[in-house]
Amino acid sequence: MEKPLVIAIDMGGTNLRAALVAREGRIVARKKESTRMEEGAQRIAERLAGLCRALMEEGSGQGEVSAVGLGVAGKIDHLNGIVLFSPNLKALDGYPLAAELGKHLELPVVVENDANAFGVGENWVGSGRHLTNWIGLTLGTGVGGALIFENRLWHGDHLGVEGEIGHMIVQPGGPLCGCGTRGCLEAHSSGTALVRGVEEAVSEGRLVEGPLYEAWQKGRKGPDVVYECGLEGDEVALEVFRRMGWALGVALASLFTVLGIRHAIIGGGVSGAWDLFIAPLRRSLEEHTRMFVPEEMVALQSSLGDDAALLGAARLAFQDIAREA
Amino acid sequence: MEKPLVIAIDMGGTNLRAALVAREGRIVARKKESTRMEEGAQRIAERLAGLCRALMEEGSGQGEVSAVGLGVAGKIDHLNGIVLFSPNLKALDGYPLAAELGKHLELPVVVENDANAFGVGENWVGSGRHLTNWIGLTLGTGVGGALIFENRLWHGDHLGVEGEIGHMIVQPGGPLCGCGTRGCLEAHSSGTALVRGVEEAVSEGRLVEGPLYEAWQKGRKGPDVVYECGLEGDEVALEVFRRMGWALGVALASLFTVLGIRHAIIGGGVSGAWDLFIAPLRRSLEEHTRMFVPEEMVALQSSLGDDAALLGAARLAFQDIAREA
Repeated sequence: MEKPLVIAIDMGGTNLRAALVAREGRIVARKKESTRMEEGAQRIAERLAGLCRALMEEGSGQGEVSAVGLGVAGKIDHLNGIVLFSPNLKALDGYPLAAELGKHLELPVVVENDANAFGVGENWVGSGRHLTNWIGLTLGTGVGGALIFENRLWHGDHLGVEGEIGHMIVQPGGPLCGCGTRGCLEAHSSGTALVRGVEEAVSEGRLVEGPLYEAWQKGRKGPDVVYECGLEGDEVALEVFRRMGWALGVALASLFTVLGIRHAIIGGGVSGAWDLFIAPLRRSLEEHTRMFVPEEMVALQSSLGDDAALLGAARLAFQDIAREA
Repeated sequence: MEKPLVIAIDMGGTNLRAALVAREGRIVARKKESTRMEEGAQRIAERLAGLCRALMEEGSGQGEVSAVGLGVAGKIDHLNGIVLFSPNLKALDGYPLAAELGKHLELPVVVENDANAFGVGENWVGSGRHLTNWIGLTLGTGVGGALIFENRLWHGDHLGVEGEIGHMIVQPGGPLCGCGTRGCLEAHSSGTALVRGVEEAVSEGRLVEGPLYEAWQKGRKGPDVVYECGLEGDEVALEVFRRMGWALGVALASLFTVLGIRHAIIGGGVSGAWDLFIAPLRRSLEEHTRMFVPEEMVALQSSLGDDAALLGAARLAFQDIAREA
């Protein structure tokens, strides 16, 4: 019997990333192309199928592909494999992506929210592999979340909104979030929040010179620029990262207290700025709960980086095979 | 074979309540006496054993008592049946209450935190009996909490602090809580917070006349007085209940969002003031999450009232028998 393989897909607003993954969590081959959302859902499904076929070709002889796992940013109807709502992939709203891809490939396709896939990946072969209960956060344009309870991904009442830690309230009446609520974690701790923080400093005249100001004037506005300037000691950059760490600490302190658990794993592109927000995060954890002594609370950095959601999607596909068998 | 019965105990700082409970959750007989904590842990264990024996006597002929379930306010070491820390029952700190009571009665004794016992009781035969996932809150001197996930009591990492929803941060930097942190739910939504709210209104000169002011002058200071005056339209009383509902709404909105669930059950003595805080609570829920439409979020009142923790302790004892068998 050939070794079982799966195809994993991480579908973002910018890139489609796909990989052929072996049972032990090893990536055998990978492909990447632009999402090009403007082409519409049907065309994207076709291109995704093409990517998958190319990977199957490449991996032939190494094992048999038995399932596809798909991580997508958005609210997912797991039962029917439908993307209900995806702010950054609007063309997919309501589209039965899993079913269509399955038809193209004649394979079972499981679909999961990308932050949840991150959680499953880190739990499988990443920073969470020795943990039982932990909170996952992905810091990117927004803040995604996942809950791993008793080594499994938590799905709550199966409403497709579980783990939305980015929309937890950390400061009632605080900054307006993209979701329409004030004071969400995402409004403090996302890449968007970092950029907005600098934007405000410029418009309020608190940032009037230096490399960060100059970058802003040239239209170089992004979390990466803020990070670089923070490393060089820019006070405004450091301040927005302090605020980010503070808000993460408020959210995690509350969740640790409520859940009686004490581990978090933080990933996503913006988590690369770890050294600028981890100390404020730890101070904030200490300030906002008395249920644990500071040393008992552990915030770990993702160990899978960009591949966390991809590997999580692979894991879900393997679990699907096991269920079918 | 005789019908199985259990003894349930709800141990508070003021009263010891015990009951003989049948399999279907029916209370067959009950006893109550003062806790008299000053007598020390050993004497209390002896008196508890006496209460239990009296109940067994009373119930003889109706079934055989096979286990004891004990609900105690405090941090519990479930494995060893030890009360690790109990602010209102200090004499019990570190005392192996379950083991001692078990020796006296020659019965297995399970011990659980009283808010967790409330959750188990409501889930068994109360407002939670048709729900799968819900958040439990008990409003009393403090704010207790319990999490029911997939019809079972959530224990997190078994650290004895799970469900401490009263110490979730709803307003960073807000009023000082008994735990030493600022802005906890308990600092807004407990009986203690209601009294403190009135106290502040008096000291700040915002409450200078009327029945609430007069009650305060006479030393009649308690949540019940605040409630009575609120019913009569006292603006300060209404304001402290609005604040209470607001804070409960912030906490529940965040937890619903994070957990992807949408039911809460609220009990405890102060929950009797339901009509004064439920409307502000619902407004606050609506204001603090966009993940659910308001009608999807359900806050239910405890249906077991004072007996919730007692019945939860009974349920845990029955589960213990089932495990042993």
